[in-house]
Formats: sequence, C-alpha cells, structure tokens
Amino acid sequence: MGSESVKADDPMLLNAVGFVRSDYHHYDKVPHRHGGRGWTAGSSEIELLPQHAAKLGGLDGYSHLIVVYWIHRAREWRMPKDHAKPPQVKLFATRMPKRPNPIGLSVVELVSFSREEGRLEVRGLDALDETPVLDIKPYIPYFDSYQEATVPDWLTEHIERFHEHHDHDH
Amino acid sequence: MGSESVKADDPMLLNAVGFVRSDYHHYDKVPHRHGGRGWTAGSSEIELLPQHAAKLGGLDGYSHLIVVYWIHRAREWRMPKDHAKPPQVKLFATRMPKRPNPIGLSVVELVSFSREEGRLEVRGLDALDETPVLDIKPYIPYFDSYQEATVPDWLTEHIERFHEHHDHDH
Repeated sequence: MGSESVKADDPMLLNAVGFVRSDYHHYDKVPHRHGGRGWTAGSSEIELLPQHAAKLGGLDGYSHLIVVYWIHRAREWRMPKDHAKPPQVKLFATRMPKRPNPIGLSVVELVSFSREEGRLEVRGLDALDETPVLDIKPYIPYFDSYQEATVPDWLTEHIERFHEHHDHDH
Repeated sequence: MGSESVKADDPMLLNAVGFVRSDYHHYDKVPHRHGGRGWTAGSSEIELLPQHAAKLGGLDGYSHLIVVYWIHRAREWRMPKDHAKPPQVKLFATRMPKRPNPIGLSVVELVSFSREEGRLEVRGLDALDETPVLDIKPYIPYFDSYQEATVPDWLTEHIERFHEHHDHDH
C-alpha cells in the first residue's frame, strides 16, 4: 500500500487475530429481550492465534476492552418483527449488523486472560461463536466514555423495552 | 462468503464508505500534547461516497458517533520519544495505530450533517486527511459508556501528562 493516498477502489484486507467461542451459534438463538447491556450476562471466550498471544502483555489493570470483530454471519440476520426503529432511520443511525463493512464492536468486561494460552474470558460480547476477531483495544474512559451523550427518543424507548436494567445503574 | 464458517486464512475485504477531510496531513504535524480528549479541539469533515449518503437518515438526536476507519498511514507512525509506555506493555494493551488490522475508532462529537450532501462535521476525530472511513455508528451511552472502567496506573499518568483537562469534567 502506497503511503501517498488510498483510493475508494483499493481493497483493504483483514486477517483474523483470533475467534470467539460463545454459546450462541445462530441469531435465532439470541433473545431479543436481553438480560443486561449485551445479549447476555454470561461470558464468552476469545482464542487468539498463537502468533498474537504475546500481544496481550500489559492488559493487567484494565477492567474493560473494546473487541472489534467481523460480523461473519450478518447476511443471516433479520430485523426482529417487534423492533421499534422508525422508517426514516437509516443504517448509519443504527447498530444493525448488516453494514457496508460488517465490522462490529462491543465494549466488554475483561474477566481474565492468559498471555501464555492466548485466551481471554470476557462478558458482554455480542458476537456469535466462530466470529473472527480483528482487534482488541483497551477501553479508556477518558477517550471512550461520554456519559452525557444524547440519543433520539425512539432509541431510549427501544432500550427501555428490550433491555433490563438490573445490572447497572443508569 | 459461506455462512458455515470463516477460517483464519479467508480474506476479509473492506471498501471505504467515505474519506476524512482534516487539517492534519501527516503524523509529524499532530501535537503529542493534545488540546483535549482527541488530537485537537478542532473539527474534521467526513465526505461519504454518493451511494452511502442516504444512510445518514435518522442521525438527528445523537450527539456523538463512533467513527471506524482504516489507519492508512500507520506504517509511517513512530512512537514519540517521550511516550510513557512500560516495556512489558504490548500492542493489545495500547491504542497505538500500528496493529495487525489497522482499524481505528474515535468517539466524536457530531456537529452537523447533511444527508443530501453526504457530509458530516465532527469534533475529536483522530484521523489524518484522506483516511478511508469504514463505518459510522451512533454512540449509545447505554452500550458504550463505562465511566467506572479502570485503567493501569501508567496510563493514568500518561493521560495526565499529555492531555489537558480543560474541556471536560473528569
């Protein structure tokens, strides 16, 4: 890739750094009424490819991560029939998985990790089993947490309807 | 892409949905001592390709977005000499731009947008001019804001040293 410019038609290629191991194997099995902020309060694992395992060094002290992944089964996803999205709301105003570039991101809680085994246990990862992981970034409130950010009313109503509020305080 | 599985060697291809227009054309010009949470308190533009412009419909009401981009000039980046990262801290414990998959993300303030022109003005986008934009996602505090997340001490010290605290409250 030349350093001078990148044109719209240049292909940009990704390689998985690891894969998700989750109890969710298909969208049909993911409950629309969620138990917490994510699909589930349960945990998932990320298994890194061996050549990336050592890159976990220094994660101690971070409580949360941003996991970036390839939504490999996005085509199978269907909008739930009871979804509250108004018709004038288009793709970039939603977090729907079918996107021009199917890149997903979840803020997850880091439960544990092993640099030796190239493995992480996390909570709150909204990704199906076998999802290719593209990147792991530390969550840094100074850069990433905007508690005061506003959202449209239709979304607030949607969250109140489909997410239970028992494991956090807002 | 088959729905059954994705192997580590399968290529995953991206296409830009638009490009960043910024006053920063090179890493050498980005101050290491930042004026706010991002590189600058100034604004950048995102110009979408015409076929993606209408996907901005419904952004009204969101104050912040997550911009996902291809860090196209990551190879040119050099660690600043006065950077405070301890040697045992490896890539996945940092936000350095040179990554196995050079995907960047910034939480930005949405200043304005035009669905007709396929254009957004945002503040806080840490991306050089001509950076390919991969996705635009609404920032939703319920999913994305973890004010209580912890970070290691070395990082807290780094942020206190290199970021000025005058435009936010924590």
